[in-house]
Amino acid sequence: MLYEMTVPQFSRTLTNLEKILDKGAALADAKKVEMSVLLNSRLAPDQFPLLKQVQMVTDTAKLCCVRLTGKEAPAHDDKETSLPELKKRIADVQTYLKSLSAADFKGTEEKKITTPRWENKWMSGTDFVHSHALPNLYFHVTTAYAILRHNGVEVGKKDYLGELPFKH
Amino acid sequence: MLYEMTVPQFSRTLTNLEKILDKGAALADAKKVEMSVLLNSRLAPDQFPLLKQVQMVTDTAKLCCVRLTGKEAPAHDDKETSLPELKKRIADVQTYLKSLSAADFKGTEEKKITTPRWENKWMSGTDFVHSHALPNLYFHVTTAYAILRHNGVEVGKKDYLGELPFKH
Repeated sequence: MLYEMTVPQFSRTLTNLEKILDKGAALADAKKVEMSVLLNSRLAPDQFPLLKQVQMVTDTAKLCCVRLTGKEAPAHDDKETSLPELKKRIADVQTYLKSLSAADFKGTEEKKITTPRWENKWMSGTDFVHSHALPNLYFHVTTAYAILRHNGVEVGKKDYLGELPFKH
Repeated sequence: MLYEMTVPQFSRTLTNLEKILDKGAALADAKKVEMSVLLNSRLAPDQFPLLKQVQMVTDTAKLCCVRLTGKEAPAHDDKETSLPELKKRIADVQTYLKSLSAADFKGTEEKKITTPRWENKWMSGTDFVHSHALPNLYFHVTTAYAILRHNGVEVGKKDYLGELPFKH
């Protein structure tokens, strides 16, 4: 079931990302620097900065579901410059994810998925989730985390994994 | 099917990681520095260095399959110090992954998975793959990638995603 593989984990990951960003904001506050310094930080000169990494996490989650289900999602014009604006974007995507149900994903395993970049090539819905959407999502969250960690923010694996679905 | 969600993607990811490490070795060579400089690099003083990140990628892939299937895997004593030794470890895990079949994963969706760290708590096999194994795998690969990128290695998203299962 592609719903189970995507929506709950996308939602959990966005929640974790928001908490990691809050830890960044707390450090900026403590060090008396603008949060924009962190949002514009990167680990290499030709890497996207933290702000863009956050936009890419939300886009990966949103567009994966749009491509699979065809359900329209909120548009974002990539004009965010501040943490509150990024949080608004995360909240928008969380609301969109909540609007989706397992039924919306019925039969999407075999659906042909393509993007304008892929020049007529395609993947099955299952391959798209396994080899593209999930690796991309975690790539951009981990990069955001790494940029903050490199800047002294005390984040750890627990912040990244978030609350796990343990049973007793 | 948990086999499809794990083994093929684990194997592809290990292949990608090996190529990323080779790009690191090429930069070390060009700059006339020892590869051990890169293998001991990190983005924060209390972060595991590149070498340990590679060990953790292989362990995440291997232990996920061991926990799900109960099939014995090669033991590693974490004594690698060089790239050839790390490649041997990656190759060991690739061989182990190749030895597994979809049948080995039958019924593992509902299997109770636990680790010594979890103090009697557990997750279903499905939850374990979604919320623990996959996020951890991509976390450590992306961190390895980020350490190399920060050190000037020219790696990009294509190196991370690897060869995608496109159809025409």
